[in-house]
Amino acid sequence: MKLDDVLSLQIEKPSERIRAQAKDIWNHVAKPIDSLGLFEELICRIAAVQNRTDIQIDQKALIIMCADNGVVFEGVSQCGQEVTEQVAALMGKRKSSVGKLSAHYPVEIFTYDVGMNCSRVPEGVIDRKVCRGTQDFVKGPAMTDEQCLEAIRVGIEAVEACAEKGMGLIATGEMGIGNTTTSTALACAILGMLPRECTGRGAGLTDEGLGKKIRVIEEGLSLHLGEQMGKGLTAAGDVFEALRRLGGADIAGLCGVFIGGAMYRIPIVIDGLISAVAALAADRLVPGCRDYMIASHRGKEKAMARLLEELSLSAVIRADMALGEGTGAVMLFPLLDMARCLYADGTSFQSASIKQYERLTP
Amino acid sequence: MKLDDVLSLQIEKPSERIRAQAKDIWNHVAKPIDSLGLFEELICRIAAVQNRTDIQIDQKALIIMCADNGVVFEGVSQCGQEVTEQVAALMGKRKSSVGKLSAHYPVEIFTYDVGMNCSRVPEGVIDRKVCRGTQDFVKGPAMTDEQCLEAIRVGIEAVEACAEKGMGLIATGEMGIGNTTTSTALACAILGMLPRECTGRGAGLTDEGLGKKIRVIEEGLSLHLGEQMGKGLTAAGDVFEALRRLGGADIAGLCGVFIGGAMYRIPIVIDGLISAVAALAADRLVPGCRDYMIASHRGKEKAMARLLEELSLSAVIRADMALGEGTGAVMLFPLLDMARCLYADGTSFQSASIKQYERLTP
Repeated sequence: MKLDDVLSLQIEKPSERIRAQAKDIWNHVAKPIDSLGLFEELICRIAAVQNRTDIQIDQKALIIMCADNGVVFEGVSQCGQEVTEQVAALMGKRKSSVGKLSAHYPVEIFTYDVGMNCSRVPEGVIDRKVCRGTQDFVKGPAMTDEQCLEAIRVGIEAVEACAEKGMGLIATGEMGIGNTTTSTALACAILGMLPRECTGRGAGLTDEGLGKKIRVIEEGLSLHLGEQMGKGLTAAGDVFEALRRLGGADIAGLCGVFIGGAMYRIPIVIDGLISAVAALAADRLVPGCRDYMIASHRGKEKAMARLLEELSLSAVIRADMALGEGTGAVMLFPLLDMARCLYADGTSFQSASIKQYERLTP
Repeated sequence: MKLDDVLSLQIEKPSERIRAQAKDIWNHVAKPIDSLGLFEELICRIAAVQNRTDIQIDQKALIIMCADNGVVFEGVSQCGQEVTEQVAALMGKRKSSVGKLSAHYPVEIFTYDVGMNCSRVPEGVIDRKVCRGTQDFVKGPAMTDEQCLEAIRVGIEAVEACAEKGMGLIATGEMGIGNTTTSTALACAILGMLPRECTGRGAGLTDEGLGKKIRVIEEGLSLHLGEQMGKGLTAAGDVFEALRRLGGADIAGLCGVFIGGAMYRIPIVIDGLISAVAALAADRLVPGCRDYMIASHRGKEKAMARLLEELSLSAVIRADMALGEGTGAVMLFPLLDMARCLYADGTSFQSASIKQYERLTP
């Protein structure tokens, strides 16, 4: 796969006709108009993406991208790199946090090693390693063109595999010590934000640690963006270059998942910061991908609100979560199940002989 | 039951010791500290209320209070009173919106007629009618002392019945045309807010309809509060009087449910505006009830944010919902199930041989 293959992808718009039909179904359910709020919109969005009013979301997947980040050696995390492999090993056995959280919920979990710094790939983890950890972005580009493109391809193919299994909805997750640093750096690069205004404490940092993280991000931006620093990036080529230089392979992999969602018409659920940055990068590389995305939660990381706003998405869960692994995205699933139950089998005004509510307000 | 029987109730505090133990369990799960955010707090709260760290939330109930409001005859709703009975009849067959929404979710629904304006009680609805609709509060008090107290008792006994069935968590719901008018009036009375600042469109009103609703609420407040209007109410006796005078029986019934939760140590989940006003009234009548409450969603109604703030509660779902029936409260259930799965069976740092995160930030 070449960069041009990605940048020349044409994304069809989700069906406006189906979206309107789905809204009409909602309007006939015996309840006040619009009263399931954003959940009505989410169901209509899924219908438009899937191009069918009888949406299929019984089969759901979580794709987790695991990778290591060279920038960890600058001391931006409380943990060592070995934790990435340790948690990925738990993921492979469905024993990590997201696996335990969803133990009684029917979601299939696909964990990818897209660039962990370890020699063996843990059991249950899919080996699609493009590097053994990225390079430290303070010292040079995190990835080569080839590595970055390959990671994107891993993501696209992960969705292709889900499409073949009939998955109707895909959540995104990640694991990679240091990845709030890489994703904050990339968010700053794309949106032109200042690191000191949007860098968070990740998995837990002291004031001193936070200060160091901010300085490291500033150094990276200065090294890789030069004069474009603080201006934001819109051109696809520039965004690819920022993704490649700042990393990480997990973000590139998830970026591929969001592109894949638009290609295979499967709605992709954004999790937290890392996933949201990947989503924005995907929409910059291949405009239109955003129409295939769904937001889940808005967590603690400061850049998150800005990213969702940029993508014109609203998160229905607000719980200050910062776990990663796709936990917030997976928690959206049972809410969508419930909304779908009412949508697909709601009692109509007509069958209940109740006078239908009228839309009186704009 | 006399008013003094209610006002003299003493509510024990939830166990701080158990709450701390529950937080300690969270801290040993292999994930960043506090990273499940508000869900960690909610689980700890449930543990403190239930007085056990191995929280029991497998069995869950929804208590729905249905009643009619005389104020409907002032033209504050798009619907006629007959809709209350029609929807209650659907509820009795689990065919209303909340029944359909939760069709595949294990929650038992108990629908009470606590004051509908109909001669026969629909099948599947529990008959605890205290009146055939309240009086129009613009013309006089909505309820007598006895009716209001009896409605509160219905709520307390509804929780007692759930306690006997071993329910670990109870959601609140309501049905009653006109009840955003009564609940906004009561919220204004208790919190000293101005109707024009916090009255919403309920199930759908034009600008003209909204204007009329505001004037009706202002009239009611002026008639029943006199000089206390705009000052807020804190004394239990005053709050009871406002509840009795403004209504409705559904709010009084839910108020009893919140008191019952504190008496039987079962966490009660607040749904939307009507439920939140009942919750605040309960905490004013019997101080300490708030410790037994859990917020679910923050919907469209304007007074909602203020009510939750007053109760020191945060809603994790933000979806502009305005359906009622307990839909938002029930949607919190699967989220709590997932959080509990991780809490009760999370992989520990120790068993995974991962170095535990340290709490470095305040």
